[in-house]
Amino acid sequence: MSVENKPELYTSLSPALLNLYDINSSIVVIIDVLRATSTIAAALYNGAKEVIPVNNVSDCIQIGKAMNAITAGERDGKVAEGLEYGNSPFEYPRSFIENKTLVLTTTNGTKLLHMANNNGAAEIVTGSFANLDAICDYLIKMNKPVLLACSAWKDKINIEDTMFAGAVVHQIKQHFNINCDASKMAEGLYLSAQPDLFEFMKIQQASHFLRLSGFGLEKDLRHCLTPNTANVLPIFKEGKLICRK
Amino acid sequence: MSVENKPELYTSLSPALLNLYDINSSIVVIIDVLRATSTIAAALYNGAKEVIPVNNVSDCIQIGKAMNAITAGERDGKVAEGLEYGNSPFEYPRSFIENKTLVLTTTNGTKLLHMANNNGAAEIVTGSFANLDAICDYLIKMNKPVLLACSAWKDKINIEDTMFAGAVVHQIKQHFNINCDASKMAEGLYLSAQPDLFEFMKIQQASHFLRLSGFGLEKDLRHCLTPNTANVLPIFKEGKLICRK
Repeated sequence: MSVENKPELYTSLSPALLNLYDINSSIVVIIDVLRATSTIAAALYNGAKEVIPVNNVSDCIQIGKAMNAITAGERDGKVAEGLEYGNSPFEYPRSFIENKTLVLTTTNGTKLLHMANNNGAAEIVTGSFANLDAICDYLIKMNKPVLLACSAWKDKINIEDTMFAGAVVHQIKQHFNINCDASKMAEGLYLSAQPDLFEFMKIQQASHFLRLSGFGLEKDLRHCLTPNTANVLPIFKEGKLICRK
Repeated sequence: MSVENKPELYTSLSPALLNLYDINSSIVVIIDVLRATSTIAAALYNGAKEVIPVNNVSDCIQIGKAMNAITAGERDGKVAEGLEYGNSPFEYPRSFIENKTLVLTTTNGTKLLHMANNNGAAEIVTGSFANLDAICDYLIKMNKPVLLACSAWKDKINIEDTMFAGAVVHQIKQHFNINCDASKMAEGLYLSAQPDLFEFMKIQQASHFLRLSGFGLEKDLRHCLTPNTANVLPIFKEGKLICRK
């Protein structure tokens, strides 16, 4: 069985590990399951014109004003001061978000996206369980090197992003050459969390489970762990995430 | 059930993540299963007077000469040029190593030990399957905060070090307060690798399995994945690893 013709796939479990990987010819999948990349998928699925990921709250307010856009974001799991909306997929139904621009800043996900962009990623897309199949189909079709990049929590590895990376690995591994222990560990984690990812997070008392369920966000947690609720492919072009047609 | 009285336990899966953890009051367990910390345990178990971990080959040669000690180490899995011995536990039987000083440098493990020391670790010990029970018994007895620090491979997370961290977590978790996803993932990995850790590494085609079995070191691999073959407690004092009585 030849592996030479298959592109490489790696998984980075923390932004602090991103620079170990050469991404100049890779598609980088930014993963922030709770909740940035789930919310990006939901907003675009529900007809948002675009999502502009920004690094900090002041940029968010400034760009939001200049573009007459919705400003949203969180710090430490709560709506950041000065912004209008938070980081929950449920805040962005079609009736509200259709044809609008969302400017978004989050603790981990938007930061990692800009890191990957500054590190010269060939292409950036965002992934979450909400758009699992869209991501997998795209990666198989493109047949290019892939880095699955987990946003983690302030650089500390987390279960949910690793689990999503594992779900992708499990679904597409026969199309890639994977010499990467992190990818294998992620797949194992995902398989052991099946069939009920929410229950797994609860039993494990995952750090983000405790953080979000403490804010009464169990509904968000369940939703963000459900596959294919917003099956679009958000792609980063000229500073904006748009839906790939 | 109160967790307040239990010390915290964290796991760092890569040297690149070490600085996320405050280790000033922690016992740091340096983990480099393949093969530095397995070899350190073996040498001390077989009566070595001390093991001096050093950062680079030239220090190793210089200190070895000054102390009339054995110089050993590897770079990229092979005996480093200019050194006498390698990084295999089998090179250090009692007949050879008893009462001698070993000066050792390795790609990942000795580097991480010095990082932890420079970062102000309260105490440093080295762990591997070879001394699993000694490590667990000591950590329980000391009742202090713990960081399990994996050496990884050039900062990339690896299966075997994570698996050993998981074995420790599994054995001592009721004595600690563990709000750390990496620790939970490590434990899950260890449990799924049971009962045959070697077979698991083989089936997963773990990166280090491929690296070492390529050098004909399958015997080393099996040995380094076997619990309690050299059940001593190597503790770092004044630049030397000695056996704690």
